[in-house]
Amino acid sequence: MAGVTERAQAEALDAADPLAGFRTRFELGDARHVYLDGNSLGRLPVATRSRVQAVLEQWGSQLVSGWPEWIDLPLQAGDAIGALIGAAPGEVAVTDSTTVNLYKLAQACVGARGGGALVTDRGNFPTDRYVLEGIAAARGLQLRIFDSDPLDGPVVDDLDELRAGDVVVLSHVAYRSGALADMRALTAAARSRGATLIWDLSHAAGAVPVDLRGAGAELAVGCTYKYLNAGPGAPGYLFVASELQGALRSPIQGWFGQRDQFAMERDYDPADGIGRFLAGTPPILQLAAVEEGARLTAEAGLDAIRAKSVALTELIVALHDEWLAPLGFELGSPREPACRGSHVSLNHRRAWTFTRALIDARVTPDFRGPDSIRLGVAPLYTSFTEVFDALDRLRAIAQRDDLPDAAPARVT
Amino acid sequence: MAGVTERAQAEALDAADPLAGFRTRFELGDARHVYLDGNSLGRLPVATRSRVQAVLEQWGSQLVSGWPEWIDLPLQAGDAIGALIGAAPGEVAVTDSTTVNLYKLAQACVGARGGGALVTDRGNFPTDRYVLEGIAAARGLQLRIFDSDPLDGPVVDDLDELRAGDVVVLSHVAYRSGALADMRALTAAARSRGATLIWDLSHAAGAVPVDLRGAGAELAVGCTYKYLNAGPGAPGYLFVASELQGALRSPIQGWFGQRDQFAMERDYDPADGIGRFLAGTPPILQLAAVEEGARLTAEAGLDAIRAKSVALTELIVALHDEWLAPLGFELGSPREPACRGSHVSLNHRRAWTFTRALIDARVTPDFRGPDSIRLGVAPLYTSFTEVFDALDRLRAIAQRDDLPDAAPARVT
Repeated sequence: MAGVTERAQAEALDAADPLAGFRTRFELGDARHVYLDGNSLGRLPVATRSRVQAVLEQWGSQLVSGWPEWIDLPLQAGDAIGALIGAAPGEVAVTDSTTVNLYKLAQACVGARGGGALVTDRGNFPTDRYVLEGIAAARGLQLRIFDSDPLDGPVVDDLDELRAGDVVVLSHVAYRSGALADMRALTAAARSRGATLIWDLSHAAGAVPVDLRGAGAELAVGCTYKYLNAGPGAPGYLFVASELQGALRSPIQGWFGQRDQFAMERDYDPADGIGRFLAGTPPILQLAAVEEGARLTAEAGLDAIRAKSVALTELIVALHDEWLAPLGFELGSPREPACRGSHVSLNHRRAWTFTRALIDARVTPDFRGPDSIRLGVAPLYTSFTEVFDALDRLRAIAQRDDLPDAAPARVT
Repeated sequence: MAGVTERAQAEALDAADPLAGFRTRFELGDARHVYLDGNSLGRLPVATRSRVQAVLEQWGSQLVSGWPEWIDLPLQAGDAIGALIGAAPGEVAVTDSTTVNLYKLAQACVGARGGGALVTDRGNFPTDRYVLEGIAAARGLQLRIFDSDPLDGPVVDDLDELRAGDVVVLSHVAYRSGALADMRALTAAARSRGATLIWDLSHAAGAVPVDLRGAGAELAVGCTYKYLNAGPGAPGYLFVASELQGALRSPIQGWFGQRDQFAMERDYDPADGIGRFLAGTPPILQLAAVEEGARLTAEAGLDAIRAKSVALTELIVALHDEWLAPLGFELGSPREPACRGSHVSLNHRRAWTFTRALIDARVTPDFRGPDSIRLGVAPLYTSFTEVFDALDRLRAIAQRDDLPDAAPARVT
């Protein structure tokens, strides 16, 4: 992408983009608005609006008779996501939030294999760390948080201290730097030490090819409202490799995880299969949206998505080097595309002020304190021209010598 | 209601019903269909369809900029529900499923006050029992399940065995018999023994006046898709009395419960107030539906709702006595209206066969094995004529001597 310094060149890349047609599968609102925060909340697919409408119709007209269809949605949407992350059918369920799912899996592992420490890296997403802190305190276990290089993410050497019985949680793509962890190598390293590794796929699924089974991974969780475009707060998912399912029990025993759910007089006896990790009644409107989002991603195909994602982030890096580095920016993401997910962080002392100015210039980035502007590219709807325009506007903003510091504010 | 044996009398009751106008606030589908399962899944309010549509619009056009508004919904919808159950503002949050919420509160109580047994009654809803079974096993605590009289529900004498440090879960309205527990007396009995009582309001809220603070209750959970009409799998809620909030910690520590959620570099430090019982990102489409359902209930007022609920269930009891008892039915609910929630169970050896025949006759009841037909009345949309017609059709079905036994099937 080095050498793209004219808008016409970006337009030519769009003209040649095999995924360009997917942009119209989303509601675009003000199409001139450049949205580079799909890594936080993905766009609304056109099909999802119709699907949610259909579920409302079904609720309104069929009422409780809708349940025989709805009740299969957690596993049905799970299989749709499973196909995107290298899981076999019956290994993924969509239910609860990512936080609750991580809690269930981590507690189940501690119960079945634990006794060791709970382990994660300082750069992991906060909710993952909070979950482990809580479990460690409740069960009197050690919590070990190691520092990984932000630009590398966790690497095999970081796992040298692992011991048998440890339960480790790592993100496949680091939320801050976008560093892409080597799932296969890290999984093997953890297993060889007798530790259990739970992957958080939140910033990876839908944007990066993930091959859980191929990598030997046993456990994972993730969210659906980023690159899977399932809407604000849509339920998360969990993956448990089939050979492990029988050995693990969810700490939250609810009627949706019970064998023969409607035979209500018996003691709890977890269902066979991934269904045992369900708990209470799942939110059907938003589960339907998960299935739609996963279908759209499957239709485009992850190889095509990844190829475009790399091209888009390469364009960001090239324009950073050309335009922004001379203005005091530093690249906060890996330079090597094979080591990077689908967002790029640009660091600058005045990042918050520039973020506010970008929003005023009709570009939505994501800000992570204290000094990082994250630009997320979602290959299904982000164009090369949008990336070009966003960087061009950021350059103009950074060149201004009259821009006052923005007031600190609560940032979402 | 004794003496109402002509349809015209039921029509007259509808004509005089002050809540009759609320029926048009719901989507009615086939209006000739008699729906008596609002105790399982309530109808779709007209306003909810618009509200969900508005959230979709907001997602589609504002994208991540919608979050500053959405982020307040768990507590905002919580306050709307709190006003219906006798909680003060800031004492209720809508989040997660009822199962997960019960797990959080029960674990928090065991952590802060526990060491005793986990206690519930055999007649409580299965998911409540499953949750306690799981916690008891994980923490090595005793699980005590006592038998209460199905027609009385749990009573003060049943709590004689309670000891300090016990954590008890009881339903305010029994899911099977509809027995209405004496919240004030049972709460006092538990507290006087040093035990902690968590109320499950799932079959009560929206149909029965609940006064948590007036009853001295400290903790409660409940669901929103029954009489609160928030749709299939809409999130549940939890209540923690304000004076207790600081002493309890959720076992599931997530970023939505963190003080200053977006300052991401710190250890977990639970927010002040009810927000500390949130965990992961809540499902916004369905949270908005909860707020709409709660608003509609508040507009009608629980005194009017209760008065009509009692009149409707009295009509069921009267027609049972007049028509069905001679055909071998037995009343499976308390006869005294003050001791009854908003559904009535009619027991018969052939209940499952009659349930199938009722559905064919365009009446939707609810079946609970082995022998119980539950008829739920939702005063916002159930009419006296509907109840009359349903009982009339059930009578005709039970009088048939040519009705074959229905095949057993999975029942929702």
